[in-house]
Amino acid sequence: MNVLTLVVLVLGTGLMPVAELDAINPPPKEVHVTTPYPKVNVITKESNDTNSTEIFNATTTVTKTAAPTTKRIPVDLPKKGSAEEEHHSSFTIFFILLVVALAILTTHMLIQTRFHYLPESIADILLGAFAGLLLKIFNSSGAQNSEAFNPTVFFIVLLPPIIFESGYNLHKGNFFQNLGSILVFAILGTFVSALVVGGGIYLLGQAQVVYKLSWIESFAFGSLISAVDPVATLAIFHALDVDPILYMLVFGESVLNDAVSIVLTTTVLEYAKPSVQMTSKTEAVFSAAGRFLVMFFGSAAIGVVCGLISALLLKHVDLRKTPSLEFGLMLTFSYLPYALAEGIHLSGIMAILFCGIVMSHYTHPNLSPVTQITTQQTFRTIAFIAETCVFAYLGLAIFSFRLMVKPAFVIWSIALVLIGRACNIFPLSFILNYFREHKMSRKNQFIMWFSGLRGAIAFALSLHLEFEQEKRYVLVTATLIIVLFTVIFLGGMTLPLMKCLDSKKKKKKSDKEVSLSKTKEMGETVDTDHLSELTEEEYEVGFVRSQQKGFMKIDSKYLIPFFTRRFTQQEVKEGRTQINHLATQWYQDVRAVPSESDSDEEAETSLINHTSEVNHH
Amino acid sequence: MNVLTLVVLVLGTGLMPVAELDAINPPPKEVHVTTPYPKVNVITKESNDTNSTEIFNATTTVTKTAAPTTKRIPVDLPKKGSAEEEHHSSFTIFFILLVVALAILTTHMLIQTRFHYLPESIADILLGAFAGLLLKIFNSSGAQNSEAFNPTVFFIVLLPPIIFESGYNLHKGNFFQNLGSILVFAILGTFVSALVVGGGIYLLGQAQVVYKLSWIESFAFGSLISAVDPVATLAIFHALDVDPILYMLVFGESVLNDAVSIVLTTTVLEYAKPSVQMTSKTEAVFSAAGRFLVMFFGSAAIGVVCGLISALLLKHVDLRKTPSLEFGLMLTFSYLPYALAEGIHLSGIMAILFCGIVMSHYTHPNLSPVTQITTQQTFRTIAFIAETCVFAYLGLAIFSFRLMVKPAFVIWSIALVLIGRACNIFPLSFILNYFREHKMSRKNQFIMWFSGLRGAIAFALSLHLEFEQEKRYVLVTATLIIVLFTVIFLGGMTLPLMKCLDSKKKKKKSDKEVSLSKTKEMGETVDTDHLSELTEEEYEVGFVRSQQKGFMKIDSKYLIPFFTRRFTQQEVKEGRTQINHLATQWYQDVRAVPSESDSDEEAETSLINHTSEVNHH
Repeated sequence: MNVLTLVVLVLGTGLMPVAELDAINPPPKEVHVTTPYPKVNVITKESNDTNSTEIFNATTTVTKTAAPTTKRIPVDLPKKGSAEEEHHSSFTIFFILLVVALAILTTHMLIQTRFHYLPESIADILLGAFAGLLLKIFNSSGAQNSEAFNPTVFFIVLLPPIIFESGYNLHKGNFFQNLGSILVFAILGTFVSALVVGGGIYLLGQAQVVYKLSWIESFAFGSLISAVDPVATLAIFHALDVDPILYMLVFGESVLNDAVSIVLTTTVLEYAKPSVQMTSKTEAVFSAAGRFLVMFFGSAAIGVVCGLISALLLKHVDLRKTPSLEFGLMLTFSYLPYALAEGIHLSGIMAILFCGIVMSHYTHPNLSPVTQITTQQTFRTIAFIAETCVFAYLGLAIFSFRLMVKPAFVIWSIALVLIGRACNIFPLSFILNYFREHKMSRKNQFIMWFSGLRGAIAFALSLHLEFEQEKRYVLVTATLIIVLFTVIFLGGMTLPLMKCLDSKKKKKKSDKEVSLSKTKEMGETVDTDHLSELTEEEYEVGFVRSQQKGFMKIDSKYLIPFFTRRFTQQEVKEGRTQINHLATQWYQDVRAVPSESDSDEEAETSLINHTSEVNHH
Repeated sequence: MNVLTLVVLVLGTGLMPVAELDAINPPPKEVHVTTPYPKVNVITKESNDTNSTEIFNATTTVTKTAAPTTKRIPVDLPKKGSAEEEHHSSFTIFFILLVVALAILTTHMLIQTRFHYLPESIADILLGAFAGLLLKIFNSSGAQNSEAFNPTVFFIVLLPPIIFESGYNLHKGNFFQNLGSILVFAILGTFVSALVVGGGIYLLGQAQVVYKLSWIESFAFGSLISAVDPVATLAIFHALDVDPILYMLVFGESVLNDAVSIVLTTTVLEYAKPSVQMTSKTEAVFSAAGRFLVMFFGSAAIGVVCGLISALLLKHVDLRKTPSLEFGLMLTFSYLPYALAEGIHLSGIMAILFCGIVMSHYTHPNLSPVTQITTQQTFRTIAFIAETCVFAYLGLAIFSFRLMVKPAFVIWSIALVLIGRACNIFPLSFILNYFREHKMSRKNQFIMWFSGLRGAIAFALSLHLEFEQEKRYVLVTATLIIVLFTVIFLGGMTLPLMKCLDSKKKKKKSDKEVSLSKTKEMGETVDTDHLSELTEEEYEVGFVRSQQKGFMKIDSKYLIPFFTRRFTQQEVKEGRTQINHLATQWYQDVRAVPSESDSDEEAETSLINHTSEVNHH
């Protein structure tokens, strides 16, 4: 596992808010406007309310546009009150930083006290919920919307680093060997699940059992709730000492089915627009399939190309003497594919995953040692902070959104979600087992079914739904409850369940301590990515062995020499000395107790034990 | 010089946009509303234009608020179209990432080709201007506002990391020894400059020589244009091999006078509000002075307290086994003071500066070696990216804002800015020289006058002005031109000027290569912060020597032991082995040419030379 830094970049470039700020013009003190604007007729006077101020701004925009003096203004000045807005944003940031700091300390305590049964994700949710409760109590007058879960923040800021880090630390051998199964689960399985949930909700609605939705709304809900969330799943699974194949199947599915789920949801929603010509059913299916293929392969291609460009740049441009530039380039290229893919309506999550994979394989060996360490640590830390924020936000959402709970709808949805996943996993596993060399056991199928956690992706997608007011609230509420249910209940039950299954079947692994903390593992500075490379052989008895071998041959014969640099002995020496110099630096900086004669060897030994433990893991 | 990571945090927590998104409710397809809302009467129908859509949203908000069914909604759902907005934001991010990548490569080329006369800041501005031009040519139909310079982004995302990094790498001895002079320049000097520029513009306006402004507008402009920008100044000065005292005076002044400038500007603007009771002149002066003191010392106190808390936390909570948590905590605490201070209307820039100083002094020695390296590298890289973005944005602003150039106004403003700075530097230096042991030479005074670069802070403040439309455009344009003039002309002339002055007076330093690239220095992984600590003695013949000594005694006797941890020999060993392990890791990862027998020693030697050169520097 490695580190991820995209976040930094966005932040560094500070783009997000640029695009969000509406940059409306400053309104004069009092406006009486009747613009020659098509069908718009606005008369506004000043009042002291914020709502009226909003109208105000909008009104002024019209005025400006209609005014003959100001044609083709490239960009308007920022709207008034932006200074005040800044102070408010700052306070929100302060608040969230406090929550993050608390989460860090909580995580540390969970690790220290070895209280493994509370996954960090659930602790973060509880922390967020607690913060939301406090906010609600103390800030009831203000009713600020700033603390809400914002899908834009989630998709642009929080998700990319998490996915990039997974890609960077992916066990590439396992992933590509199981790509066939992963694709079947991700594409076919998600489709099945969406059909089951969507159809079920629609029929139950027609039967007056649950809140009634049109078929478009039902299937949109079914599609978005079928997105198994990589963040929630990773947080639980990464920590568990599961079968690597099982981990890879669940992880791969959860990353790739996100793209499927997004395409399904948007395709369904396109029917909802009255402006869209209702084409024939077959045509619609074909266009959706075509769009899906473009999205899938286009996104992956963007990621791969970006990764390869970064490898070539860092191979041929010698930035090793200026690690800041080197690291800056890493950051830029780690976020680039996400931004590009999302910008042209492809799947950013797919692009950044593949970019991470390619960069860890080709770009990483071109880096100077300092930048390698920095990259690992920074990516890891940012992914950790982003995950913490995602879960804290989910907890916060309980108290910050207006919830409209329809109990029957929620309960039936949960049932349908579980049924839908069952219809996905069990039949498809059965079919796949005919083709797989490494069969999926009943137990693993059960865990796969059980571990289909829904997370922030589903919730963020639900916030994007553009139905009428009441239905939005109902769907958002249902999604939030399903997410919390799966993460807290299913996620919290995974460890006990696995122990239970383990004790039934075999006992040999029980000496290895199972921990729900993925942060604990992150503590090790060992580049497990490359460690796992060594153990790749074990799993290579897969069914795509021959092709895999073929690619690996080409890879080591042509691709690796082309994309990675060959360090001269002097460069290697320099890199080593650079690191040693840093170590000496640290040695000088810290205040140490005076040397005790023989404790050195002891320390050395304890560390070696420690390291070997990690290698074993 | 060290590194700075605040950026990461904001990004990690992803707050900014949260507060910016208006979270307006989704509008129904067609609205005919006449709400019982005070003085607001809106009738809206749908039209296909974006402007009308904005009205639309606003209208709906009113409807919702007035509707009896929906009282006290904690937070509304995000407005519709947020998914589309995301795609647009993503594309903007992609665009900026490309500019950043180009800037990195340009910087590298500037270093490689040893083309020292083009400072990186100017190269970045040119790059931004070029990008803006391209955008204008190819994107003329869209006229998107997303690429504009956004003061919120600047103040919340880009500025904090730059200032924190300066604080973290500050030569603390020099700074505190010259604190008296710095405060005089920053407070009194800025006040003088604001008076000269404001008064001059007002009088010239009355005399019909330049564009006419009211006295409030004149003094607001005078105040904001008196903010000497630390970013622009640092970028030039850091690279130059100037007298450390001179550097410290200019840097200290530029950081602290920002707070002065902001207080002056806001105080002047408060007069502009008709709602504010016009108090007596004396009362106003006293309240402004009081507010200033609170802002100044309150902000510094926040920074110091945050820094000390971080030191205590990292001393007593042993996170060294989990570097991600450790680094995460560093990130959190590095941004915390800025967010808190800005949130309660104090000066974030002051708070984060002092936090950086305290953290580098007390928190840094508590870190594990990996986190020390990561912190340095990451902070440095993020500050570099943020600086690049600031200058690129300034270049972009030339083509993205509607400029309204009043030539007379601009030329007289530049003249007044130079005169105002002269009235600041020369008389105050004369007075201060009575009290200073280390006198400011005529030459240094001249350089201080010359190097009062205005930068992004002044420009961002000008965007915050809330005057009427035309005046805003005139002032923003004038500010932008003054900023570009000072950065490009004065900044570009600094190196030739100093060479010229040097050749007149002395020739002894000419063998040392002068470079305008601060990135080149950043390349060295040596912690110059601690290096400079060693050379502190040289400058300690200052006029505050006795007090300084007193504090240093207390510091080393009580504060350092209280706030920093004492590593046991075993912990030191562990840290060392951790680093060595990472070095070995790198050694294994890279593809190296087979060992050649005797080149090792050679490499060793060349590196030692290299290092000693840095130390010398």
